[in-house]
Parts: sequence; structure tokens; C-alpha cells
Amino acid sequence: MYSGEFERIGKRLFNEHLVGGNFGNISARKGTEGFFIKQTGSYLDVAGEPVFIPLKGKVPDYASSEYRVHRDVYRKTGHEAIVHAHPPYAVAASLVMDMVVPEDSEGMMLCPKIPVVEGAPGSQKIADNVSNALMFSELVIIRGHGTFAAGKNLDAAYVYTSLAEHSCKVLFFKKVYADKNTSVKTPHG
Amino acid sequence: MYSGEFERIGKRLFNEHLVGGNFGNISARKGTEGFFIKQTGSYLDVAGEPVFIPLKGKVPDYASSEYRVHRDVYRKTGHEAIVHAHPPYAVAASLVMDMVVPEDSEGMMLCPKIPVVEGAPGSQKIADNVSNALMFSELVIIRGHGTFAAGKNLDAAYVYTSLAEHSCKVLFFKKVYADKNTSVKTPHG
Amino acid sequence: MYSGEFERIGKRLFNEHLVGGNFGNISARKGTEGFFIKQTGSYLDVAGEPVFIPLKGKVPDYASSEYRVHRDVYRKTGHEAIVHAHPPYAVAASLVMDMVVPEDSEGMMLCPKIPVVEGAPGSQKIADNVSNALMFSELVIIRGHGTFAAGKNLDAAYVYTSLAEHSCKVLFFKKVYADKNTSVKTPHG
Amino acid sequence: MYSGEFERIGKRLFNEHLVGGNFGNISARKGTEGFFIKQTGSYLDVAGEPVFIPLKGKVPDYASSEYRVHRDVYRKTGHEAIVHAHPPYAVAASLVMDMVVPEDSEGMMLCPKIPVVEGAPGSQKIADNVSNALMFSELVIIRGHGTFAAGKNLDAAYVYTSLAEHSCKVLFFKKVYADKNTSVKTPHG
Repeated sequence: MYSGEFERIGKRLFNEHLVGGNFGNISARKGTEGFFIKQTGSYLDVAGEPVFIPLKGKVPDYASSEYRVHRDVYRKTGHEAIVHAHPPYAVAASLVMDMVVPEDSEGMMLCPKIPVVEGAPGSQKIADNVSNALMFSELVIIRGHGTFAAGKNLDAAYVYTSLAEHSCKVLFFKKVYADKNTSVKTPHG
Repeated sequence: MYSGEFERIGKRLFNEHLVGGNFGNISARKGTEGFFIKQTGSYLDVAGEPVFIPLKGKVPDYASSEYRVHRDVYRKTGHEAIVHAHPPYAVAASLVMDMVVPEDSEGMMLCPKIPVVEGAPGSQKIADNVSNALMFSELVIIRGHGTFAAGKNLDAAYVYTSLAEHSCKVLFFKKVYADKNTSVKTPHG
Repeated sequence: MYSGEFERIGKRLFNEHLVGGNFGNISARKGTEGFFIKQTGSYLDVAGEPVFIPLKGKVPDYASSEYRVHRDVYRKTGHEAIVHAHPPYAVAASLVMDMVVPEDSEGMMLCPKIPVVEGAPGSQKIADNVSNALMFSELVIIRGHGTFAAGKNLDAAYVYTSLAEHSCKVLFFKKVYADKNTSVKTPHG
Repeated sequence: MYSGEFERIGKRLFNEHLVGGNFGNISARKGTEGFFIKQTGSYLDVAGEPVFIPLKGKVPDYASSEYRVHRDVYRKTGHEAIVHAHPPYAVAASLVMDMVVPEDSEGMMLCPKIPVVEGAPGSQKIADNVSNALMFSELVIIRGHGTFAAGKNLDAAYVYTSLAEHSCKVLFFKKVYADKNTSVKTPHG
């Protein structure tokens, strides 16, 4: 079941250009004991056998190298699923902003302030920062790295990922349209 | 029949990046009584069972949250089908412009002035503004939110959606090409 | 045979975002008598029954509205196939430039000067300008409208279309990378 | 075996827009004698019969026109597979930079300095420059032309190609977000 679900969501992430190569990963909570996560180095859009990681205890070698982030999110929050992707507009925005503030309607409703946190991939610092942010949010961007989105299921986490990139695209395109010659409007008049 | 048609058009909308995640919706008029619309939260590119909404009377709970806009368009106009999408260039342009004026040939012929209206998602104000605009047009952009396109069938509404984003892309790309160093040309010499 | 070939090339054009909606068209010469062209309003990426148009004589009503351009190219040149698309970077570049001069290696080798011509869609003027340009070239851009590419077969015409958009993308991206702070290099040192 | 593997990787390259038309090529080392490479002019995303090229001796006519680059890489390095693509952001960046220095986390870890080399397509100069660069790297950009990525297998070479374009996109988008009004941040705080 997890393999098919991971592949279904992975294909959506690829088709929307939210991740490329063998980057990103996906996980889903399994009861109170732990969670399933894709194997390290595998493609998100290809069926594979996810790895079980217990919330406490030894971690298999072939788990994704970012299992610490996922584990801490499941330990500290009630989220049931996590999608980590590398959407390029969101990654670039995080190099310039400390908080992404969407100006499109959906972003304003669903994630009005997207926090940007720091930390090297695979580090405990990044696990702390992401899991702390996801206690109060469904979405966080790691500066220069990518998004972590969490929710009640994989679809919810994917939709937040898609929304983060959409909101960052709108900010980017608006900046060029507005260049010097106009007053910018806000939605909902 | 509606399920297959909605999926066919939904896949086109996704493949052209006119909508992402579970955003957007699609509807088609059913005789004089009402219309079919996708279920709330479902994916446009995946087959599902559309919901019937009467032009007058009780609305099922699992209808799209934007049913009011669709209902008012069917009440006030002769359009047979509606596509609502979130094309990112068009959304961004609507934050800067009160009217999108295409400079590409197809835009100039088919939608020479695309109105931009305001209103919060789900509100009656947005239903009024969109349905009024579609009395005189096939296309309208809700500021910071997305497009509503309507026509004689789903294909026509999809083609207008695609055209809106194409025209907004051309305006965007032209702005960067032209930057400071050239006089801009117009088509049809 | 033409239906399958048109669909194969049409799918490539869609997948590369060289055309959207029901825009663009495709034709192929049939001996000395005339040529096959897609039906007006049909999708390039969906199998359909192409229409035969004689080089001299009556034109069927359901032919593409731009049959004049195709007919004149087959009358005046030796090209065997034509692809007309609406690639957005090329369309935007044509609003600013009278001649697109690629700076990428393939563009420099295969289409070092891409002419831009004018004319309203469906007019005889556009048929004259495009067919004259394609007597000396495989590629031309109609200002604000789209590309016409021609060659020995559909694959060749598609490849030129893809190349035109690639060269225009490279010019666009380079402009932003270079902005004010660098001297721009040329290939082949 | 090579045909299916080349097609699998070719489809990934197309779907991520790392190559278009019939451009780019793919090769894989075959023992100590030589390597397989796609036929000249064929599509990377369509199954075909790759050509065997010996490290020493006569080269078949229908080999890719860039076989010299591939052959010199296999002669001078231990790489087992090569992917050559034309990712548009990377090509454009190479017209402006002598070295691409990624600012996203993955680029900083996996290819912190991507060299840019020069040479005309098909020349010995380009073969020398690329093969020399790949003695010390998995990735190189030929100015105005495209990427060469090499590794222990085709997947590794593809992933480096994807990463090069991702890093160049992030540099591009960041430049627009940052325009004049902000101090740019670096990852890993």
C-alpha cells in the first residue's frame, strides 16, 4: 500500500516540477510505532519498497539520509504524512526572504506566512528547526534546500508543497510585471 | 459521461501547468435544471463523480466550495461550461493590472481585453463580479486568485484558459526582452 | 499514416510546451498534387483525420484557417512538411526583435538568423511573407503569433521549432544572468 | 539492455525539460573495449539501437556526431556512463559565467564549482576540454552548448544533469527576487 501511494504522490511532484532527479522524499506514519520512508537514492516517481523507521531505536542503513527530520516531526507533532521536495522558486525565494508572505488568494488563506529555517542537510539542527516549525504550521522552507510539508495524509502534504511553489511563482512573476511602473494591487479588494 | 470529459480536460489543464495540486474546478450545464461540478478537494486530472447542483434549491455539501460562482454564471449567461484554473502568470499579472491587454495575435483576436475582478474565494461578491463579467466575455481573472473561462463546451473554456496564460507569458517575456534597449513592435505590421 | 504521424509530432510539441490549447497546425506534402493538414480547431496531440488540400483548386471548409500559408510554402519551395506552433519565448522575442540571432551553439549552426515577418493570421500577406522567408530558411517567426518551420519531413520541422524556442530561452535567461554586472561571453572561444 | 536503459534515462531528461528536439546524447561504457552511444539524429526518449564505438579503431558512420567527446572521457577517466544534454538555464549561465557556483544546498554539496569550457561542437578541442574537466569532476558545461555529466552509471550522470539545471534555476530566480532591495542569505546559517 505505501509503495503505490508513494509512487502516486511522487509522480504528481515530478509532473509539477516540484522535484527532479532522485531528490526529495516522502514518508507516512504507521500507527504509534514509527513511519515508512522511501529508500535513500531512489526516485520518488518510481515504485519502490519504503523502509520502516521506528520512532525509537535503530534505523536501517538504506533509509533516506534525511530520516532525522521526518522522525522528529512524527515525534513532536500529530502530522500523519510528510513530503519533502526541492521546488526551485521556493528554494530561490528562501535565499532572499526570512519568511515567505504569499500574495495570491490560496497562499493567503492556507499558508499566509511560510517560515524559512536553516540547517545543513542531514544535521540534527535541521531536524530541530523543521520539526519545531511544523508544530505550528503545515509548511516550512529550509533555506537554499527545499520544502517540508506535513498534514493528515500524503495528498494534503503534496497540496501544500504545490501551493508553496505556486505562491513563490506568483511573487516572482508579479515582481517583473510590476517593475517600476505600477502600483501593486492586493486581492479581495 | 461528465466524469470522463472532466478528466480529459483536467489532464490538459495539468499538463499545461494551468493548475496544480487539487486547485481549480470544472463544471458543465445539464439542461435547464442545473449543472455538474467536480467534488470539493478532488483532483481535476483524476476521474471522479461530479456533483449535480440545481440552479435553484439545496446544494449538496460535497460540491466545490466555489459553486456560487458557477451557479450565477449559469443563471445569468448562456454559457454551457466553465473552467476555473490558477495559471501563475495570469494570477501574477492580475496583481498589477486592472485589465490584461494581450499583445500576441491570438489574444488580440479572441480576448483583446481580459477584465480583472475582485472578491474573496467563496464569497457572493466574487460570484457577482465573475458572472457579470462573463455576460460580456468568455474570460475573466480574479485578482490574485485565478481565471474563470466559459463557453459553448468544456473544450472552448479550456482553450480560453490556455490562451489567457499564453498571453500573460508573452507580456512577461516581452518585458524582459525589451528592457530599456529597444522600441517594442506590434503584430500585423 | 498521416494521422499517426501528426499525432506523434503533436504530442512532442505539447510535451515541450511549444504549443497549447487547440493552437498551431501541422501539414505534410502528398506528391505533386497537394498536402494534408490538420482539421481546423482540432488538437495537435490527439489523433484526427487530416484534410487534403490541392495546390490548385477548391479548399475544403474544415481545413485549418491558415491553409494559405501552408499552400504557398508548398507551391514556392521544396519543403515536404510544415510545423506551425506558438512557442511563448519566440513569440515574445518577435515583439522586440526584427531578427532573432541565437547565441547558443545549435542556434548559431542551424539557424543563425531567424527572420521575423508580419501579417494578420489568415491573410494573404502572411502567406506571402512566410513562404518567401521559407525559400531561404527552415524557420521564420510571425511577429506576435508563432513559428513556421519547414523541412524534409515532420521531424525536421519539429526539431527546428524546438530549436527556435531553445535559442530564445537562452537569450532570455542570459539577459537576466548578465544584468549589468558582467561581460557576456560567446561560445567556441 | 542498453536500448531500454537509454530510453528510460532519455524520458527522464525530456520530462524535466533538460533536452528537447533530437538534441543531446547518452553513452555507457562496455567493458574495456569501448562504449555504446545513441545513433546520430535519434530521439533520446525513444527506444533505438545504440552504436558500439571502440576506444581504438574505426568509428561507425551513424554514431552521434559528438562521439569524440565521449571516447576521450572513457579513455582518460574511470566514468562508466555519460549524459550530454542542453538544459537552457545552464546553457544561458555559461554565456555569462566562467564557473557556475551553486547557492542551493545540493549544488554546494555535490558540485560546488561547475567548470565552463569552450569549443565548437564536434571538434577535438571540445573533446580535450570536456575530458580534462571530467577527470576531476562529474559535471562540466560547454559554453553556449550544454552539459556533460559522467558517473558510475546512467542514473548518476542524469542526476548530475538535473542538479546542474536546478542550481542554475535557483541562481536565476534568486537574482530576480533579490533585485536591489535585500541582502542575500546563504544556506546552513
